[in-house]
Amino acid sequence: MSDVVSIDPRTGQAVEVVARETTTEEVDRLCSAAQAAAGGLEALGRDGRAALLRALADALEDRREDVVAVADRETALGPVRLNGELTRTSYQLRLFAEVLDEGSYVEAAVDHAGDTPMGPRPDLRRMLVPIGPVAVFGASNFPLAFSVPGGDTASALAAGCPVVVKAHGSHPATSQVVFDILAAAAEKAGAPAGTLGVVHGVQAGADLVAHPAIRAVGFTGSVTGGRALLQIIEQRPDPVPFFGELSSLNPVVVTPQAAAERGATIGTELVGSFTLGGGQFCTKPGLVFVPTGADGDGVVEAMAAAVREAGAPVLLNEGIATAYGRTAGRLADADGVEVLASGAQPTGAGFQAAPLLLTTAAADLPHEVTEECFGPLAVVARYDGTADLFGALAEMPSSLTATVLRGQGETELPLAVSAKLRPRAGRMIYDAYPTGVAVSWAQHHGGPWPSTNSQHTSVGTTAIRRFLRPVTWQGAPADLLPPELTDDYRGIPRRVDGVLELPR
Amino acid sequence: MSDVVSIDPRTGQAVEVVARETTTEEVDRLCSAAQAAAGGLEALGRDGRAALLRALADALEDRREDVVAVADRETALGPVRLNGELTRTSYQLRLFAEVLDEGSYVEAAVDHAGDTPMGPRPDLRRMLVPIGPVAVFGASNFPLAFSVPGGDTASALAAGCPVVVKAHGSHPATSQVVFDILAAAAEKAGAPAGTLGVVHGVQAGADLVAHPAIRAVGFTGSVTGGRALLQIIEQRPDPVPFFGELSSLNPVVVTPQAAAERGATIGTELVGSFTLGGGQFCTKPGLVFVPTGADGDGVVEAMAAAVREAGAPVLLNEGIATAYGRTAGRLADADGVEVLASGAQPTGAGFQAAPLLLTTAAADLPHEVTEECFGPLAVVARYDGTADLFGALAEMPSSLTATVLRGQGETELPLAVSAKLRPRAGRMIYDAYPTGVAVSWAQHHGGPWPSTNSQHTSVGTTAIRRFLRPVTWQGAPADLLPPELTDDYRGIPRRVDGVLELPR
Repeated sequence: MSDVVSIDPRTGQAVEVVARETTTEEVDRLCSAAQAAAGGLEALGRDGRAALLRALADALEDRREDVVAVADRETALGPVRLNGELTRTSYQLRLFAEVLDEGSYVEAAVDHAGDTPMGPRPDLRRMLVPIGPVAVFGASNFPLAFSVPGGDTASALAAGCPVVVKAHGSHPATSQVVFDILAAAAEKAGAPAGTLGVVHGVQAGADLVAHPAIRAVGFTGSVTGGRALLQIIEQRPDPVPFFGELSSLNPVVVTPQAAAERGATIGTELVGSFTLGGGQFCTKPGLVFVPTGADGDGVVEAMAAAVREAGAPVLLNEGIATAYGRTAGRLADADGVEVLASGAQPTGAGFQAAPLLLTTAAADLPHEVTEECFGPLAVVARYDGTADLFGALAEMPSSLTATVLRGQGETELPLAVSAKLRPRAGRMIYDAYPTGVAVSWAQHHGGPWPSTNSQHTSVGTTAIRRFLRPVTWQGAPADLLPPELTDDYRGIPRRVDGVLELPR
Repeated sequence: MSDVVSIDPRTGQAVEVVARETTTEEVDRLCSAAQAAAGGLEALGRDGRAALLRALADALEDRREDVVAVADRETALGPVRLNGELTRTSYQLRLFAEVLDEGSYVEAAVDHAGDTPMGPRPDLRRMLVPIGPVAVFGASNFPLAFSVPGGDTASALAAGCPVVVKAHGSHPATSQVVFDILAAAAEKAGAPAGTLGVVHGVQAGADLVAHPAIRAVGFTGSVTGGRALLQIIEQRPDPVPFFGELSSLNPVVVTPQAAAERGATIGTELVGSFTLGGGQFCTKPGLVFVPTGADGDGVVEAMAAAVREAGAPVLLNEGIATAYGRTAGRLADADGVEVLASGAQPTGAGFQAAPLLLTTAAADLPHEVTEECFGPLAVVARYDGTADLFGALAEMPSSLTATVLRGQGETELPLAVSAKLRPRAGRMIYDAYPTGVAVSWAQHHGGPWPSTNSQHTSVGTTAIRRFLRPVTWQGAPADLLPPELTDDYRGIPRRVDGVLELPR
C-alpha cells in the first residue's frame, strides 16, 4: 500500500510520511474490535460515557499547543481559528456529557398494561439504544471539529457506539496525533479496547463502509464522494443509515429596506463571511440576492471594495485549489455573469486562491450559479422587484442555511421570502451571516438533499439521535429491563402512559 | 392502461373492475396537487389537523359495515378480524390527534442568545416541520390498518404532510371505497384539495416514488419490492427517506424451564400465533427454538397436534399462495429439515394453503430456515444446551421482534438470550407471542435491515417522526416564528436553554 503523506499547503511540499494506507485486513480487524467493544461501551451506562467524554475533552485541552501546531502546518487555517476549533471540539464533547446526564435523549416511554379501545394492551417500554459501530469520515475543512474528535465522533460515543474514523487525506498527521491522544485517554477512562479506531486511504474508507460490523456512517464531503459511499451502502446485504452533508449553496436575500438602511455594512460583512477560512465553510454564503437600484448598488460597491482588499488565502489541499480554479472559471464564463471584483492573486507558493465576486441578474439566473463553489467566491444576483426575486428563489437547491437581511422591524417581505426558502433549508437566519454554527440544544445543521441529514443534524445535541434506534420491551420482568425503564427509576424525563414526567 | 380488477381469493375469480391503472400524467397531477396542499395543511396547525384526523376516524366508523363487507370479500380475512382492524384504524387516527394535542412531537427547543465557552451564541429556536408530500404503499395483509387509512397515512397527515397512497393490487376495491370516504371527510373538515390521493398499478407506484414533489416514502412489502423502490429513489436527483418494512423472521426461544413448566400450552399457543390471519403477519413467529429432551418434545407434540387440527386458510392473493407453496417446498426439502405435521389440505377453490410445521437441528441450522416464509408455516429448531442455542442465534437475521418464553421467575438464560437477540430486533417480547402489535406511545415496529425503519417505527405514536424534519430559526423576530417557538407560548413541552419544561 502507498504511504500516507502530510503536505504543507503553504508550500505544496510533502513534509512527512504519517502512516501507510490501511489494508482491507486491518480495516476488518478494527471493525471487529469496534463490534467487540459495543457491549462494553453501552454497559458503561450514561454516567460512564459522560465521564469518558469529559476525559477526552481534558486530554485534548492538555495537548492544545501540539495539536494546533500540527493542524496549522497541515491546513494553513491559522492558530486563531484552530485554537477556536479545539475549544469548540472539547466544548461539544462536554456538552454531550450533559446530554447523557440529562437523559431525555433516550426517549424513555412506559405504557403499563391496561385496556384500550383495541382491547387489552400488554406492558410496553421503549427507549433508544446504540445503533452499533459507526464509521465517521473526517472533513477536509474542520481538522478537529468535524474529524477524528468532532461532532460525529462525540455524538456516536455519547450514544454508546464505537467509532472508526476515516482520516481525511488533507490532514493525516493531525488526525493521527489527535487519535493517539483520544485513544490513550479512552483507555485510561476505562473504555473497552476497540472503542476508537482510525484508518487512512480511500480504499480503507470504502472497506469501512462495506464492513458488516458498521451500523451507520457519518460523512462530510462532496456530492460525488457521498454518492459513491451510498452506492457501496446500497450493495451491502444490509444497507445502513448514511448521514452525509454533501454541499450547500446558502442563499442570502438582502431586502430593499435593509439595503437602504445599512447597505455598506452588509456588503462588508458579507465579504467577511464568504472569505472566512478561505471560503471553505459548508455554510459559506454562495449566492446573494441584492435589489437593483442605488441602495443595492451600495451593497455591491461595499462588497467589491472589500474583495479588492482581500488577501489570497491558502486553501486546504491541491484538489480543492484546482477545483476552485475550475469552478470559478466556469461560473465567471457562464452566460450573463460578470466579474465584479477580485482579491489578491496567488503568489505562486502553495495552494493559494484569489477571492472573486461575480454578478448576474436574478431574472435570468444561470444554472451554474446555483452550484456550490468551495472557496472564496460569491455571486451577487440583482433582483428588480419581488417577482424577480421569488422566481429565482424557486430555482434554489436545498441548503444547510438560508439568510434574510431585513430592515428594522420589517416583516412582510421577510415572511414571504421565508415561505419560499424554509422548504429548502435546515436553518433560517435573520440579520446575521450563515458562517458560524453554534453547538447548542436548538441548533440544526442539515436539511433536504444534498444533505442526507435531512431528518437529523450533525451539529448540536440532537446529533446523537443519528446513532440510536428504538427498542421496545414487551412484558419484560424488571431484571431484564434497562434501568431507565424500570418502574421506580426517576433520573430522567420519561413518558408514562402517554404523559411526559420530569425527573424528581 | 390495464384495468384494475378486484379478485375474490375464496374463489380466485375476478369480481369487478375497480378502476384503470393510474397514468404517469395522473400521478403527476396528484403529486402536484399534494405539493400545492402542503402549505395549507401545515397552516391548519396542530388543532386543525387533530380535528381532521378525528373527522376521518368518524367517517370510517360511519361506514364500518360497507368497508368490512368489501374488505372481507376481497381479502378473505373474515369480519371479526376486519372489524377489529377498522377499530384499530380509527383508534390510531384518534391517537395521532392526541399526539398533536400534546405537542411534544415537534421537539421545540429555544436557546436564548448568551455567552458560551465558544463565545457569544445567537438566539436559536428549533422544531420539527412537515417533510412534505409522502407516498404510502398499502400492504397486502392489512387492507385498513396499513393501507389507505393506516398508520403511515395517519402519522403523515398528523405531521402535516399530504399523502398519495399506492393502493395494493390485492384489495383495490377496499382501497378505493376507503379513499372515497376519507377524501370526502377531509374536504368537509376543511383540508386543502390534494391532501389525499390514491393511485393504482405497479407503474404508478414507481412514478410516485420518482416524483419530485414526494419527500418521503412509507412501504410495507417484500425485500424485492423494497429494493426496487430504493433503486428508483437512489436515481432521483434528490434521494428521499424510505421507510420500509420488508420482511421478518421473528425468532422465538423456549427455555428448558418454560418447556418443563408449560410445554403443551406453549405449543398450542405458538400454533395459534403462527397460523393467525393465515400466517400473513409481519410478526408471525417463523422459527422456534425448543430444547431437545422430553420437555421440548412436549412443546413439539402440542404444536404438531394443533397443526393437524388447523384448517387451510385462504391466502390474500394468487402471488402469495404460489410463493407460499414454493417457499414451503424449498424449506421442507432443505438438508436436515423434516416435516412434523401439516394441517388441512386445500380443497381446490381459491388461494388456500395447508399449514405446515417443520423441524431441524439448531446445531446445524440450514440457511433456508432463516428466511421469512409468508403464510401458515413455522420451523422448530431443537437445541441441545446453550452452546447450540447461542450458535444458532448468531445466525439470525434482524427481525421486527424476538421472543423469549421463560420459566416462572427465570432470568439468567433469558438475559443471555436477550443479549444475543436485542441487536437483531426492534421489539423484545417475554412470555407472549409476537403477533398483535398494540398501537401506543411506547410501541416500536421496526428494527435493523430488512427494516429500513431501523431508526423509526411504523406503529405507535413515534411513527410521526418519520415525516418530520428539523428547522432552526436563528435571530428570528417573533412575527416570523411558528407559534410554538415564541417566548410566551406555554402549550407544549419545550426545552428552554437546555432545560425541559412542561406546559403550564
